[in-house]
Amino acid sequence: MVKDFTEEEKKGFYKAIYSRRDVRSHFISKSIEDDILSKILHAAHHAPSVGFSQPWNFILIKNIETKNKIKKSFEEEKKRSSQLIEDPKKSKYISFKLEGILESPVNICVTYDPTKFGPFVIGRSSIPEAGLYSVCCAIQNLWLSARTEGIGLGWVSILSNKILKETLELPEHVIPVGYLCLGYVNEFVDKPDLQTAGWLSRLDLKDVVYFEKWENKENENWKNIQELIKKNLNYA
Amino acid sequence: MVKDFTEEEKKGFYKAIYSRRDVRSHFISKSIEDDILSKILHAAHHAPSVGFSQPWNFILIKNIETKNKIKKSFEEEKKRSSQLIEDPKKSKYISFKLEGILESPVNICVTYDPTKFGPFVIGRSSIPEAGLYSVCCAIQNLWLSARTEGIGLGWVSILSNKILKETLELPEHVIPVGYLCLGYVNEFVDKPDLQTAGWLSRLDLKDVVYFEKWENKENENWKNIQELIKKNLNYA
Repeated sequence: MVKDFTEEEKKGFYKAIYSRRDVRSHFISKSIEDDILSKILHAAHHAPSVGFSQPWNFILIKNIETKNKIKKSFEEEKKRSSQLIEDPKKSKYISFKLEGILESPVNICVTYDPTKFGPFVIGRSSIPEAGLYSVCCAIQNLWLSARTEGIGLGWVSILSNKILKETLELPEHVIPVGYLCLGYVNEFVDKPDLQTAGWLSRLDLKDVVYFEKWENKENENWKNIQELIKKNLNYA
Repeated sequence: MVKDFTEEEKKGFYKAIYSRRDVRSHFISKSIEDDILSKILHAAHHAPSVGFSQPWNFILIKNIETKNKIKKSFEEEKKRSSQLIEDPKKSKYISFKLEGILESPVNICVTYDPTKFGPFVIGRSSIPEAGLYSVCCAIQNLWLSARTEGIGLGWVSILSNKILKETLELPEHVIPVGYLCLGYVNEFVDKPDLQTAGWLSRLDLKDVVYFEKWENKENENWKNIQELIKKNLNYA
């Protein structure tokens, strides 16, 4: 049995997990140092990938014309999506700050290239989406690494992937997975913005854990952990 | 500017990133304690999610009949996929140990439920896949948390999602995203198994980073970081 993390090391890890936020409004103008950015990208590149295919690319962006195009796409998509709901939700939604494209010094588009090391990739012939999932794991590594360095990150998913592909000149077969805004911040807030705004609540752990089958919440063989989870302990 | 991680805390975080492995063959029989499993699930549940939708569920599995069914599906899919390649790759592929379903004490199926908090979820009307991406971030949190606790995790993507859905009685609209095998191990190997076996090499960071546009590897405005990345520094 391996026990190789000290309590202090574990503390550092869980601090990253619980204090990571989706940042839209606390960016400061300070540039990200090249060695720090490189360190964050290195952490992303060490994510797991199906069949070790490493199917990700990271496009670093600071060009203002590119940022303006993406920001415009965000505004169009936000307007379009606001028409899907009614007041009072609609007004609330419109009032939310949901991106920091221009305020953050570095934007990163993380892409998925299914042709890399293909066509046969171990683990991808039964579940083709597995390649996309690997790219998401890389994004989460990147996000957590940024947090440990004091750098905020916001994932913008209100935009047109078609416009993003054209703007960044992605080939037809390459899929943009995440558009991320990174920069130093003056604060990491305690809770997700949408929780603070009363948009949605955080679920309890007991609401998302089942035993053996879908929706099975009571199972004799898992009695102790059921009790533990019901207590909704705070590990943060 | 926020600088709230000590060097020791950062060290712990990066240790998790670089020593995490996709584990198939080093499981020992020791059970996972309920409080540790609960801690790992809590870390997963604190992943980012599009529009704070928390669209994941975690189905904990130790029932041997369920495990046997999934193992059978793995074997069928491995056989089927081996027919897609020719020797010598085929024999090598067949020889690989690619799952630890029966040897690991706990299996977890992580699912995506697009109806949760829906139909309108902030950030999901332009990019519907964003919900799936959130579930992958939760899996990566879970994986890293397991690593800090000395618990190995292997993601099995050679299986039939149809059989998995039937076995776990998932509703039609729920998508199984990851089937994970967890248990204490007697070793975390230094490098990914497929790298050690010479199946694929790890790419250099310079091979996956572009500047401003797709395939742009030389850009005057990113000169310093280009030089840094070319050195392929080891942050592990």
